[in-house]
Amino acid sequence: MSIFIIGSGNVAWHLCAALRKSNVKIAGIYSRDQQKGEQIAQKFNTEWYVQLNLIPKNASIYLLCVSDDAIKPVSESLPKSILKSKIVAHTSGSKSMEDTLIDCKNGGVFYPLQTFTKGKKMEYKNIPFCINGKNKKTIKKLMEVANTISTSVQVISDEQRKNIHLSAVLINNFVNHLIYVSGELLHQNEIDPEILQPLLLETIQKQQHLGAFQAQTGPARRMDADTMSAHLDLLKRNKEMKTIYMAISKSIQKTYNKKK
Amino acid sequence: MSIFIIGSGNVAWHLCAALRKSNVKIAGIYSRDQQKGEQIAQKFNTEWYVQLNLIPKNASIYLLCVSDDAIKPVSESLPKSILKSKIVAHTSGSKSMEDTLIDCKNGGVFYPLQTFTKGKKMEYKNIPFCINGKNKKTIKKLMEVANTISTSVQVISDEQRKNIHLSAVLINNFVNHLIYVSGELLHQNEIDPEILQPLLLETIQKQQHLGAFQAQTGPARRMDADTMSAHLDLLKRNKEMKTIYMAISKSIQKTYNKKK
Repeated sequence: MSIFIIGSGNVAWHLCAALRKSNVKIAGIYSRDQQKGEQIAQKFNTEWYVQLNLIPKNASIYLLCVSDDAIKPVSESLPKSILKSKIVAHTSGSKSMEDTLIDCKNGGVFYPLQTFTKGKKMEYKNIPFCINGKNKKTIKKLMEVANTISTSVQVISDEQRKNIHLSAVLINNFVNHLIYVSGELLHQNEIDPEILQPLLLETIQKQQHLGAFQAQTGPARRMDADTMSAHLDLLKRNKEMKTIYMAISKSIQKTYNKKK
Repeated sequence: MSIFIIGSGNVAWHLCAALRKSNVKIAGIYSRDQQKGEQIAQKFNTEWYVQLNLIPKNASIYLLCVSDDAIKPVSESLPKSILKSKIVAHTSGSKSMEDTLIDCKNGGVFYPLQTFTKGKKMEYKNIPFCINGKNKKTIKKLMEVANTISTSVQVISDEQRKNIHLSAVLINNFVNHLIYVSGELLHQNEIDPEILQPLLLETIQKQQHLGAFQAQTGPARRMDADTMSAHLDLLKRNKEMKTIYMAISKSIQKTYNKKK
């Protein structure tokens, strides 16, 4: 089994590192960008290709580690023999197989549910992999590869994956933004935002311990109108944050009114 | 130095545990609730009092571990000699000293910036304590006590503390709610919400590594209108979540447009 990597961004780097750790052969790397292509190929001791029609045709799997918009055009430019007989899988959370891997007979999905940071090490064995494929053979092969990397591999339908991706945006992008705006609020009041980190860690541990439903506290949960109105007053010059504050508070109130 | 605790909820329990760990004497506990009062007094090997006029007058500090609304009436019911000569501090994030500890000559604030869970152990030494007082002597004494518990003790004005409390609501209540709604979304699609936990942990680590501003990724950050509209479509039957999605996405977009 050997895997050809298409792309040279964060996902390509981390999947190459994960595959090398699992002793899966990397058949080569395609990248339009010369500097990035040479860098990643050198790092993982493989060949760099800049023309899709010249890439090796004998790898088992071609992994598209490219941006969502590039999946369709890049897959359409792959050599015909690859499209007909090889597995071509993308790594996107939001794109369906049908819309993007149109001519790939053995199209599939190999989606690692994680945020990757350039140069930051991580435990690959904990990354949940969401696998899909146009046929059983494709699913089986992609599961095999994912299982060499991680202990958390599942077959996930395209519809399910779209919901996972949306959840990932809430858990990663939105949580991160709340951390950012909290930090800004403290900066403006001459307080080091580091003061929030122990609370953030305990918030994560508490929901693991109790579940997020039970773990909820605070003014919205206890319908404390005075504190909420004092908070909105502190945010009076920040229209976006005021809207966020009201929207999430309303959703919390509805959650606990409903379930009481 | 000895501390009298007023209240028998989560904050009272954890502060008693922290004080005992620091070998600070607990002079007694006041609680209106017989069962809770007896329980906590027994646990920390001290006396339980059910009448405020009968509590010992010779403790150094009286700590009000009661709900925000109870601070003012309870402090007004304290024996005159305590109000005149002892330190009386509350543990609230959002209430000012002036509004609540009106007759306390040595009124102060002893606010632990943390979420406490009944029966869950935690590292007290990491809890940031926000201290304030009506006079220098009060601040000094409360700092002394906090320093026996934690390595992160600061004098924080009432105005700063209100902003810290608002930030804490964003970091704790709002993050927890995003975790809850993400889990519900996955439940509805027959996916175990546990799949999100590695991403959540990495989200926390990534912002510690890069800072939340640099750590941001996702459709709102890269102005990816297609993915955002697909997400809103998945949320079409969930009005509250749709409002939250749009509000946070808009705030992310504004953050990066402004700072580009």
